[in-house]
Amino acid sequence: MTQTLRSHASTGVDQARRLSLDPIATPERLLLGPGPSNAHPDVLAAMARPPVGHLDHVFLHLMEEVQDLLRYAWQTENRLTIPVSATGSAAWETCIANTVERGDTFLVAVNGYFGHRMADMASRYGAMVITMEKPMGQAFTLAEIEANLAEHKPKVFGLIHAETSAGVLQPMDGVGEACRRHGTLLLLDTVTSLGGVPVFVDRWGVDMSYSCSQKCLSCPPGLGPVTIGPRAEERIASRSGKVPNWYLDVALLSKYWGSDRVYHHTAPVNMNYGLREALRLLAEEGLEAAWQRHRRNAELLWEGLQSLDLKLAVEEPLRLPTLTTVYIPEGVDGKAFARALLDEEGVEIGGGLGDFAGKVWRIGLMGQNSSVESVERLIGLLGKRLPAAA
Amino acid sequence: MTQTLRSHASTGVDQARRLSLDPIATPERLLLGPGPSNAHPDVLAAMARPPVGHLDHVFLHLMEEVQDLLRYAWQTENRLTIPVSATGSAAWETCIANTVERGDTFLVAVNGYFGHRMADMASRYGAMVITMEKPMGQAFTLAEIEANLAEHKPKVFGLIHAETSAGVLQPMDGVGEACRRHGTLLLLDTVTSLGGVPVFVDRWGVDMSYSCSQKCLSCPPGLGPVTIGPRAEERIASRSGKVPNWYLDVALLSKYWGSDRVYHHTAPVNMNYGLREALRLLAEEGLEAAWQRHRRNAELLWEGLQSLDLKLAVEEPLRLPTLTTVYIPEGVDGKAFARALLDEEGVEIGGGLGDFAGKVWRIGLMGQNSSVESVERLIGLLGKRLPAAA
Repeated sequence: MTQTLRSHASTGVDQARRLSLDPIATPERLLLGPGPSNAHPDVLAAMARPPVGHLDHVFLHLMEEVQDLLRYAWQTENRLTIPVSATGSAAWETCIANTVERGDTFLVAVNGYFGHRMADMASRYGAMVITMEKPMGQAFTLAEIEANLAEHKPKVFGLIHAETSAGVLQPMDGVGEACRRHGTLLLLDTVTSLGGVPVFVDRWGVDMSYSCSQKCLSCPPGLGPVTIGPRAEERIASRSGKVPNWYLDVALLSKYWGSDRVYHHTAPVNMNYGLREALRLLAEEGLEAAWQRHRRNAELLWEGLQSLDLKLAVEEPLRLPTLTTVYIPEGVDGKAFARALLDEEGVEIGGGLGDFAGKVWRIGLMGQNSSVESVERLIGLLGKRLPAAA
Repeated sequence: MTQTLRSHASTGVDQARRLSLDPIATPERLLLGPGPSNAHPDVLAAMARPPVGHLDHVFLHLMEEVQDLLRYAWQTENRLTIPVSATGSAAWETCIANTVERGDTFLVAVNGYFGHRMADMASRYGAMVITMEKPMGQAFTLAEIEANLAEHKPKVFGLIHAETSAGVLQPMDGVGEACRRHGTLLLLDTVTSLGGVPVFVDRWGVDMSYSCSQKCLSCPPGLGPVTIGPRAEERIASRSGKVPNWYLDVALLSKYWGSDRVYHHTAPVNMNYGLREALRLLAEEGLEAAWQRHRRNAELLWEGLQSLDLKLAVEEPLRLPTLTTVYIPEGVDGKAFARALLDEEGVEIGGGLGDFAGKVWRIGLMGQNSSVESVERLIGLLGKRLPAAA
């Protein structure tokens, strides 16, 4: 930097980047990719309400509603159940930053892109990361999990309930009990399952879980719900030093979200308005009804895709109702096809990630978008735009 | 945890937390506290637009607009100028997490609550934190800064441009040059100055700065703009290990916000819609005009407060135009007064923090709220509701 510094504020303003723009004019899309999904109109209307202050008693009351509704969605009584003021990835990191100490063994089940991310995140906090791996499209058996827990006795076991890159739903039978037997905290990713697929945090013995606002909850992205149970809280209380992350330190977050109401950061007020409405609508529909709807429309989608001679990448019963991976037919440029679908029809579907990159499309039916209309529109468009099957 | 775990998902859903709520009905407030300020109606309308995907070319184009408009607001050409997908505190931590390594000397100028936070944050990353302190209400002289830089040769010097707890504006003359002479990176907090008070990142030799969406930009809270200059980028490139924070790692963030457009996390699409409109409106008004408006209305407020025999806590010329600290008159319960003002008049003012707790009110005139109407409404209400001066 050899630039000369002029120090007086009264000198002129550089107008170079002063863009003169028209008011925002974004298009309306049907979002059938891996998320975000379309937000519910009531949620969007809530987000446009004038903000109140983050310490206003009106907002503090709304925070309590959000917390209770999150507990319902996750089926947990965990005290520490809050939306982190960032996206789902930060909620994820909240679990890791608070419970992992340097040198801790951290076992990660990797069967897709997000398992790799879990390993990377845990390594940032000095964990000794051990991975157990499966090809994308497969899940882990209880015996495989049990064997790894017994061998490595990890402090934390990170598992992806709904692998969004692969479209796989991990069976949870016995996993929580196995973790308890080995003194391991169970960290479960429910980013693509919360609100769309049965999740029972307490019954399953899940010690920590995180999710996002923008998938099965039908709220725009921007908040990362997290729930932390008593066994994980004990681990946090017995840490040898401060959490090496200020923004995500649950000791500080609890003082704001708990009864003390001590200022930590300025909560995203309007995002919380939206999430409150999204969770209210989920409670109104009821979890069982929402799960059934996601299941029913997914089956409709699978039938439709197969009727077009498309091949699904994951076998039943591991196939995830909220996110379907389907092989791109031979001779079709998957990326160009998806781009044309977006630009010409206003419908978004996703491409593959990791080992599935270039091989599959990812089709999400999440939240409000899990409807017969979405399925019919997409199947109709695919039928029209794909070359006729050989 | 002696709780028995039942493992099959088909068992019943616990309805205990299934709140049955009315649609959201939050009140409209005039937010004259330390932030958030009221959002511009165009910003709120933008936030209610249906989201597009975070990798949609429409959104990628909008990201470029946001980046350029932030460069204008900060008066910088820094490549790495982005809104972090969280609030201002996370933008702050982004600067620290990426540039600080264990054992680095980190000098913090503390003249209020936020200096203490800077020290806490830096300590989380293993910095050897040294503080130079002044009572709240005062600023640092160049000679004091220079002496501390010379003595400690810190890797980073953290300074608060606009101390929101004290209402003090830090003079910047010569600070950047002094930091360069001592091989120190200058980290400047512009949370309560960006868009409201002259800020010249490049001209002042500021290496890193962060701000928020909810103060002088008139957007709701939820995004944390950050700008990182070439000297700081060099420091980051020469780190000995990975950044010990995944969500805020600028190497990963740059791949998404840069030309690669590699997926990192799902950006808060609707918050970025809002910020784009907020920054568009700032560019439309022009920085000079916005700064002058904030200055003019602050002076009007100061005159009004003094006409009510209220005493301002900070002397000119250090008094911050965007946030005024005023002593609570003797015999008045400051907290009860503010609460009644909120509930009965719909006007929010803030209480004191740190050494000013219980002693001052904090009155913000930020963004759209910096208007003659805001000042007249508040002064009128104070005149009506405060006991007549002795």
